[in-house]
Amino acid sequence: MDESLSFIVELRCTGCGRAYDPNVAQTVCTYCFGTLFASYDMEKAKQRFSKELLPKRVASLWRYREMLPVRQESNIVTLGEGFTPITKIESTRERLGLKQLFVKDDGIIPTGTFKSRGMTVAISKAKELGIRKVALASAGNAGGAAATYSARAGIECFVFMPNDAPESTMKECYQMGAHLYLVDGLISDAAKFVINGKEKSGWFELSTLKEPYRVEGKKTMGYEIAEQFDWELPDVIIYPTGGGTGLVGMWKAFNELEQLGWFETSESKKPRMVSVQSTGCAPVVRAFHEGKKSIEQPFENARTIAGGIRVPFPYASEQILKVIRESGGTAVDIEDSAIIKSMEMLGRDDGLYVCPEGAATLAGLEKLIEDKWIEKSEKVLMYNTGTGLKYAELVRLTKLKTFSKEESSNFDL
Amino acid sequence: MDESLSFIVELRCTGCGRAYDPNVAQTVCTYCFGTLFASYDMEKAKQRFSKELLPKRVASLWRYREMLPVRQESNIVTLGEGFTPITKIESTRERLGLKQLFVKDDGIIPTGTFKSRGMTVAISKAKELGIRKVALASAGNAGGAAATYSARAGIECFVFMPNDAPESTMKECYQMGAHLYLVDGLISDAAKFVINGKEKSGWFELSTLKEPYRVEGKKTMGYEIAEQFDWELPDVIIYPTGGGTGLVGMWKAFNELEQLGWFETSESKKPRMVSVQSTGCAPVVRAFHEGKKSIEQPFENARTIAGGIRVPFPYASEQILKVIRESGGTAVDIEDSAIIKSMEMLGRDDGLYVCPEGAATLAGLEKLIEDKWIEKSEKVLMYNTGTGLKYAELVRLTKLKTFSKEESSNFDL
Repeated sequence: MDESLSFIVELRCTGCGRAYDPNVAQTVCTYCFGTLFASYDMEKAKQRFSKELLPKRVASLWRYREMLPVRQESNIVTLGEGFTPITKIESTRERLGLKQLFVKDDGIIPTGTFKSRGMTVAISKAKELGIRKVALASAGNAGGAAATYSARAGIECFVFMPNDAPESTMKECYQMGAHLYLVDGLISDAAKFVINGKEKSGWFELSTLKEPYRVEGKKTMGYEIAEQFDWELPDVIIYPTGGGTGLVGMWKAFNELEQLGWFETSESKKPRMVSVQSTGCAPVVRAFHEGKKSIEQPFENARTIAGGIRVPFPYASEQILKVIRESGGTAVDIEDSAIIKSMEMLGRDDGLYVCPEGAATLAGLEKLIEDKWIEKSEKVLMYNTGTGLKYAELVRLTKLKTFSKEESSNFDL
Repeated sequence: MDESLSFIVELRCTGCGRAYDPNVAQTVCTYCFGTLFASYDMEKAKQRFSKELLPKRVASLWRYREMLPVRQESNIVTLGEGFTPITKIESTRERLGLKQLFVKDDGIIPTGTFKSRGMTVAISKAKELGIRKVALASAGNAGGAAATYSARAGIECFVFMPNDAPESTMKECYQMGAHLYLVDGLISDAAKFVINGKEKSGWFELSTLKEPYRVEGKKTMGYEIAEQFDWELPDVIIYPTGGGTGLVGMWKAFNELEQLGWFETSESKKPRMVSVQSTGCAPVVRAFHEGKKSIEQPFENARTIAGGIRVPFPYASEQILKVIRESGGTAVDIEDSAIIKSMEMLGRDDGLYVCPEGAATLAGLEKLIEDKWIEKSEKVLMYNTGTGLKYAELVRLTKLKTFSKEESSNFDL
C-alpha cells in the first residue's frame, strides 16, 4: 500500500544534474551550489492524477498535492492558501485598448502575499523532515509567511529583515511569535546573518531557492493559472521579479503540465514570461539585455520603494534568465514614480488594492505596449503578488476633512 | 427565455410582511421601517438549482447566484470574494479540550474583511438598478469595501467614519477614490450625516440593514459553511456582533437551505448562534439576558478597541435577538483585554492573524466552556470577520533588536 500523497521521486541539481534524496533535509547542490528541483513520477501521475479530479478538491494550492513534495497528509501545514482569483480589470483594459487583460490576485491569500505559497510547502516539508528551527533573510513578506506557518507547525522561526521593511511585516512576525531581528542594510546584508549564524544555531535556512521546496509551492501559481483559464494559457505573463522563485516556479509548472498532457491544444503554447523590475534595482533587466547567462555582480546602490523586488543579486539568476529566454519573454524596468501612479490607478479604476510590486506590472505593461512588444489582441495576465494593505507607509492621507458630531444637522460638502 | 441568473421574486418587510418590488431601488419598509428581506422562487430553485452544480463553479460567493438578487451577469461587480477557508486550530482546540474546533476565515477575502460579501452584492444590485451615488456610515471596513466595489462599478461613494477608525480603512477609501469624511464621534454620529445629507445629495444609503442586499451577500457565509462542512452544520457558531447582518444572514441561509432540502439529515439540526460583544458595548447581550424583544436605547458610553462591534444601537436588533433565541443560542460579553490576548494566542498557537472582532470569538468561547454552555464533544465554529493586517495600531513592537551590517560576522543572539 502506497500511503504517500506525493509522487515526488528525487531532487536534482539544476546546475550539474546530480540527484539528491528528498527524504532527508537538503539545501543546495553540495558540488556546484546549484538550486535543487524536485522531480515527480510522471508516468504514475499520468495514470493516477487527472484534471477531472480537481473540481471536487479543496480550493487551495493543496489540490495539486500529487505534484507537491509532502508525503503525509498530517504534515500539511495549511491556512487554505492559493486558488486565488483571476480578476478582470475592465477599465484599465479599455484605457490601454487591449482585448483581454487579467490580474492573478495573490493579495487574497493568508498573510496577504504570494510568499504563503512557498512557505506552506516549505514548512510542511520541514515538519515532515523533523526540522525544529528555521531562519531566513527577508524583505518582509517572506518573513511574515515563514513566521505564520512556523507558528502553526510548532517550529521556531528566526527572521532577519532590513530595518526599512514594511512595519506590517514586522508586526506580523511579532504576532506570530517569531524571533525578529532588523539589519541596517539590504536583504543581502540580512542574509549574511543567516549564513554566519546557521551552523552554530542549528537553523535550517529557508532563503529563496536555497532550499528546494519554496519553489514547489510557488509553481502552483502556474497550475492555478492553467486550471482557471481552462487549460489555455495567456500569451504573456508579467511578473515582478525579485528572487525570481515565482517566475521559475511557473515555468516548472507549465513544463510539468505539458508532460501530464493537460493542455487543451496538443501543441501547447506557453506564455512569454516578462520580468518587471524597478530602474533602482534591475539586475535581471540588465543581464538579460546584455545577453548574460547569469548575473555576475550585485546591482549597486539598489533602491526602490518596492521592497520585494529590491534584490540586488538574486541567487537563481541563471534559472531566471533561462526561463525568460526559453519562453521568448523579456525584462523591463520602470521608475518608482510609475509604481506609485499604477497603485493609485488600479484602485480608482478597477478597485484593486495592490502592493507596489504588483503595481509595477501595470507600469511594465504600459511600456511594453508602447514598445509594441505586446500586441493589443493578446491575452495578458499581470501577477499581483500581494495586498496593498501591507504598505500603509506608501499611502498619504491628504485633505481629509473631520466634522464634529454637531455639524451633522447643517453640513455641506 | 429566462435570462435572469437570479430566482428572486420580491422583497418582504420582516416587520409587517408588506411586499416590495425588487426591480426598483428599495431601502426599508415605508410603513413600519422594518428591514426588507429578499425572497426567492423556491419551487423553481428545487427544480433547477442543485448542490451537485457547485463543485464546477467559481470559488467565490457567486457560486450561489440563483439565490442572490442580481439578474444579469454583466452587473456582477466581483473581485473573487468568498468561499473563504475553514481552518482547523489544533493547538487551541487541544488547549481547550474540545473535540472539533474551526475558524471560518474571512481575513482571506478582497479588502481583508467580511464586509466584501455584503458590498459585492449590494453594489452589483445598485449597478443593476442604475444607482450612481452611494453613501454610508462605517466603523471602517464597510467603508473600505463600499469604496472598493464602487470604484469597480464606476459608482461615486461617500463614506463617513469615526475619526478613530483604523487608518488602514481610511487609506483604503482614499486609494479607491472614495469621498471620505471623518466624524469626531461614534458610528451612530457618522450615520446622522448620511441621514441628513442623502436627500439633498442624491445618495443611496448603504448602511447596515437599511438596504436589502448587503444581508443577501452576508448570507453566503451560511451557504459556504454548509457546503464546506458537506451539508452538516456545526453545533455552535460564535459570531462577533455589531450591526448583526452576518448573524441574521447566516440564519436566513440555513432556512433557505432547509427549504431546498440540501442538508444531509432529513431532520436538519441548525447551529446554536452565539453573539459575542465587548463589555464596553454590549447592547445585544444586555437585551438578550433581559428578555427584551428589541434593543430599546443606545448602549451608553460605548467603547471597545474592536470598532466593528462598537455599535451601540443596531438597527436590526429585533432580527438579531430573534435569531439567537430561535436557534437556542446565547449572547456573551468579554473584556477588551481578553480580545488582545486572544489575538496574540491565535497567532502564536495556530498562525492565524485575526482582527479584534474575530479574536473576541475565542474569548467568548472560553467563557462558554467555563460556563458549561458548550460541551467539549460539540463541533464549534468561530467566525473570523477580518485580517489582523488592518489593525496595525493594536500591535506594539517591543524589544526589537537592530544590528548594523558589520555585526553579521560576529553576532550572537
